[in-house]
Amino acid sequence: MTEELKKGLEGVLVAESSLSFIDGDAGELVYRGYTIDDLAKNATFEEVVYLLWHGELPTADELSDFKSSMAKERHLDDGVQRLVRDLAEADEEPMAALRTIISDLSAYDPDTDADPTDEAANLRKGRRITAKIPTALAAFSRIRNGNDPVEPHENLDHASNFLYMLNDEEPDDVLAETFDMALVLHADHGLNASTFSAMVTSSTLADLHAAVTSAVGALSGSLHGGANQDVMQALLELDESGKEPIGWVEDRLESGDRVPGFGHRVYNVKDPRAKILSAESEALGEAAGTPHWHEYSVSIEEYLGEEKGLAPNVDFYSASTYYQMGIPVDVYTPIFAMSRVGGWIAHVLEQYDDNRLIRPRARYVGPKDGTVTPIENR
Amino acid sequence: MTEELKKGLEGVLVAESSLSFIDGDAGELVYRGYTIDDLAKNATFEEVVYLLWHGELPTADELSDFKSSMAKERHLDDGVQRLVRDLAEADEEPMAALRTIISDLSAYDPDTDADPTDEAANLRKGRRITAKIPTALAAFSRIRNGNDPVEPHENLDHASNFLYMLNDEEPDDVLAETFDMALVLHADHGLNASTFSAMVTSSTLADLHAAVTSAVGALSGSLHGGANQDVMQALLELDESGKEPIGWVEDRLESGDRVPGFGHRVYNVKDPRAKILSAESEALGEAAGTPHWHEYSVSIEEYLGEEKGLAPNVDFYSASTYYQMGIPVDVYTPIFAMSRVGGWIAHVLEQYDDNRLIRPRARYVGPKDGTVTPIENR
Repeated sequence: MTEELKKGLEGVLVAESSLSFIDGDAGELVYRGYTIDDLAKNATFEEVVYLLWHGELPTADELSDFKSSMAKERHLDDGVQRLVRDLAEADEEPMAALRTIISDLSAYDPDTDADPTDEAANLRKGRRITAKIPTALAAFSRIRNGNDPVEPHENLDHASNFLYMLNDEEPDDVLAETFDMALVLHADHGLNASTFSAMVTSSTLADLHAAVTSAVGALSGSLHGGANQDVMQALLELDESGKEPIGWVEDRLESGDRVPGFGHRVYNVKDPRAKILSAESEALGEAAGTPHWHEYSVSIEEYLGEEKGLAPNVDFYSASTYYQMGIPVDVYTPIFAMSRVGGWIAHVLEQYDDNRLIRPRARYVGPKDGTVTPIENR
Repeated sequence: MTEELKKGLEGVLVAESSLSFIDGDAGELVYRGYTIDDLAKNATFEEVVYLLWHGELPTADELSDFKSSMAKERHLDDGVQRLVRDLAEADEEPMAALRTIISDLSAYDPDTDADPTDEAANLRKGRRITAKIPTALAAFSRIRNGNDPVEPHENLDHASNFLYMLNDEEPDDVLAETFDMALVLHADHGLNASTFSAMVTSSTLADLHAAVTSAVGALSGSLHGGANQDVMQALLELDESGKEPIGWVEDRLESGDRVPGFGHRVYNVKDPRAKILSAESEALGEAAGTPHWHEYSVSIEEYLGEEKGLAPNVDFYSASTYYQMGIPVDVYTPIFAMSRVGGWIAHVLEQYDDNRLIRPRARYVGPKDGTVTPIENR
């Protein structure tokens, strides 16, 4: 037993995993051997999810089966639809709503009574959860804005179908491809806190819905998925301030505020996902005649790189990318969940496959040797 | 960076805590300096929750305020009531239902927009969550059995009010005190997996509802809270088999099955909570003329102690205690949650107070240097 306190578990190896490899010094991210650049250019979200869950990229036939089996699961049961409406009408925060909805899905899952470690059942459950998240999120977002939900379209890809349900309009190819690429980039990232929360939960042999629900909860925090929304709020603030980006950053740092979207526990250099999304954000800005969002970001990146040695992470460029796609700001983190669910499920499958209960220790620093005084004498 | 793999994080110190101290060799459990025996005899569940959250046992006035502020929060909002009914009618598993319901509570919490680390707001949220769990659970259980929910009774204690809402009848003093004691015994236990799941989730600065939802998910697993239900199923099986307890255990072990309720990651001797509950189970059996449940348990304990060196944990005796109180078997684990929520919230308050993102590493053992083959060539 080591007596060293490891509050953040930095550097502690808690699992072996075949899912993703991060070289924080080289700025490399790899899913099952393929670099994120290669996958972003040459594979769709559905192919990447298949890769994470099955260990290999699908053949054309396998992909076709996988896509249609997911697309068939997009519809929400009546009970879930009622819950989505209640949450939207109660003005619940979108990540909290998503957490409650995913937890609720288990009540209607045909495999809910399967052994929690049954891999075939978990792959079916995983497909259902992954398929239903976009439907629930789009419905929640529309009801909140006073619109009726749009039923899913079975013949659209995962990314396109979400944008279609959100806007009641099929997206053009550029939007659909950009969004699909963003999903590919976010699908897995080692033992981040949400993935680890899913692993801790599943290590008790709690089921997949419990694990994914934990992960969504963890992702909602501002030190994790919540950061992409903070980035956009900051860029909007900068835009409204009328200041030059560098002056705005200086003022912000001077007043003791951080600039969100910089620094990462794992990367010492620029996040490879940020590089890809930076190009996407630039292209969207040029096409839409709104190049300033990307220009702001580049100025801030250069300044913080030179002055503070900080490099942008994935959240820094996903923010302006999503904004230019017309996605509501408080849906950015749920979109992260829509993608990362692929990784969460893959890690939980690995956990079940070679499970050990995850139970660390705390050092007790409280009082000792107390005796309860009867309440009348306290 | 250590390169040693610690799959279960055994012995890894991840926090300092003033909440509970476990001496696994001496079989001692202490909450904030008071032994579990002292608290079980001399404090109620509400006093113990106050102790965990505030660091000291309450005075009579403080306890009175704390109890009435919790009792006022017992009622469920309409949206939550609809969800409880839907889950009961969908025949959801009780722990999964409880997870979804607790997650849903955040939509109706008046402090839902507070900063996640605001301690005063968290204490209010914590009181609401703790107060509403028994109401939700009793309503869920009654609806499932075709009965209407019973509204909470503001003037009953936490334990009595749950039994009242479950059975539509005020419990006698023995039942109320036994149940209160069981809640005291389960309120905290170091960094068990559900508590740790709550800590991992809250370490991203996700909010209290997210953290408690993760914990309920983790507790549902058969390696954690689910074990008390497994114990009772085993005792019922033994009873139906007509075998002698020792013969039944031998047959069970021979066929490769474990006997649930034995062994613990932390205790090397008999769990001190099991000692207390064993006496309760015996007293209930004598009063009700059903001494055989306790007798079965004692025979199994003696046999497994001598033959295998195994000692019973808390689940082994909570099972027959709850059974003799007339509580439905699949509500045992939710009752564990009803109590442990006190500890979860206390640990999350500690986490926020000195937070660090919990993010361990995995050793990558997957393929390297792949290149995506175009799908038409796969």
